[in-house]
Amino acid sequence: MTTEHHTVVVLGLGLIGGSIARDLAARGTPVIGVDSDPATLAAARADGVVRAGLDDAHDAAANGSEQTIVIIAVPVSATHELLEVTSRRFGQAALVMDCGSTKRDALAAATAAGVAQRFVGSHPMAGDHRSGWGASRRGLFAGATVYLCPTSATRDESVALAREFWTSLGGRAQVIDAREHDERVAFTSHVPHAVSAALAIAMSKAGITAADLGPGGRDVLRLAGSSPEVWSAIAASNSDAMLHALSAIETQIGGFRRALEQKDERALHALFSAARDWMR
Amino acid sequence: MTTEHHTVVVLGLGLIGGSIARDLAARGTPVIGVDSDPATLAAARADGVVRAGLDDAHDAAANGSEQTIVIIAVPVSATHELLEVTSRRFGQAALVMDCGSTKRDALAAATAAGVAQRFVGSHPMAGDHRSGWGASRRGLFAGATVYLCPTSATRDESVALAREFWTSLGGRAQVIDAREHDERVAFTSHVPHAVSAALAIAMSKAGITAADLGPGGRDVLRLAGSSPEVWSAIAASNSDAMLHALSAIETQIGGFRRALEQKDERALHALFSAARDWMR
Repeated sequence: MTTEHHTVVVLGLGLIGGSIARDLAARGTPVIGVDSDPATLAAARADGVVRAGLDDAHDAAANGSEQTIVIIAVPVSATHELLEVTSRRFGQAALVMDCGSTKRDALAAATAAGVAQRFVGSHPMAGDHRSGWGASRRGLFAGATVYLCPTSATRDESVALAREFWTSLGGRAQVIDAREHDERVAFTSHVPHAVSAALAIAMSKAGITAADLGPGGRDVLRLAGSSPEVWSAIAASNSDAMLHALSAIETQIGGFRRALEQKDERALHALFSAARDWMR
Repeated sequence: MTTEHHTVVVLGLGLIGGSIARDLAARGTPVIGVDSDPATLAAARADGVVRAGLDDAHDAAANGSEQTIVIIAVPVSATHELLEVTSRRFGQAALVMDCGSTKRDALAAATAAGVAQRFVGSHPMAGDHRSGWGASRRGLFAGATVYLCPTSATRDESVALAREFWTSLGGRAQVIDAREHDERVAFTSHVPHAVSAALAIAMSKAGITAADLGPGGRDVLRLAGSSPEVWSAIAASNSDAMLHALSAIETQIGGFRRALEQKDERALHALFSAARDWMR
């Protein structure tokens, strides 16, 4: 099983889709690119990454044979609609994947769209606060964990192809249950985004500017610069798991508050030590 | 006024003191280094950075003339004791500075130790979660804001010398009231450290490992790896200002919680937008 000889349709040429397209083009895989923004598509063509847009893709591969892989790389709120388009146009594709940060909703949408057998929800743990074609780059997935969530109906060969696809881009593929995925990334990614944003808003209200941050503060606040469109959709999609993680974090912040109220340096030391030990 | 021809006594050769010593040695300024860890002092000498330790510094400069600058670069809990040593041994120094992250306590300690006239509390906004001589490096202060807090009794020439000192290391010196400093850095640095640590402890209790973090989560969690000794002392010293900032941040986290409870994507978008706008 290899993905080398497939044609890959990339729907959405932002940071993730654009970076996938760049890696594929660099190794000679034909990429058909689609983006709602004509300027983005023009830039991807000018950069020599996208061979054809959807409208001028008349070859058999583009019409959704077993030689086609479809990647949906749009904000999670738009995934549902594009899965329906994919079902109509690429119903015979060997593999359909999204790249969103929540997976239960993606699997439900793929099932509703009738592509459950060919669908593997994927979530590459790559990228940063930047977005758009301009932020995309080669090698983005090198060394990155890529979570893979098949539906209960996904064919074994589609799962194998998904694993091969991400491995060929340098990712470390890891099959995981969709609920477990959503709960884990609520802790490791979604709530850190929300907390970083909460810090930014509090500083804004206190009359502090981002230029006042030192290097440590800049690290913590970097994610506050992320796309509101992308992150409000993720948060709405994963609200239950985020609330669970957020409560756990509020409890720990409360521990710091009590230690500060009591000026209890020993308790503060124990808290900072527990955090440092976890990081090691 | 220039610091080029002073002898500089650096008490504490960790990340901050070590980096100061490296920059000074590189331009030919004599550095007398002191550290409670003999191996650290030996390493600083072996690296050719420290010319003499305190015990073998017999020249006039080392005994605290107007040609001596004393830098105290130890955790804030140890600053008080070293200010007393400084007062006894270098009472005639042109300038005495600490480098700690809280300034009201430092100014009170300098006054109690009898060096208020020659003291300028300093706080370079540089460094990261690492610590120790091994983490010190040249150029650490290039472009960094350096807050300077004179006492009410500090001589003008000592303030000017402090400004010149940090500027010569590439820093951007900024004189600020000690209370205003402590309140500002509670927001920009101290509470972000505590929140990063709270996230780490919550993940630890949820059975998640640091290896599960993606690049965004790693940014937010980096400070959780900071020294518990350094940070518990800072938190105890600045507990009132931290409590004020922590409350403001808890309020904003509460805003995210309510929007998640209501799955209110519009409210979530408004929150992420406010954060992103502040970062820009």
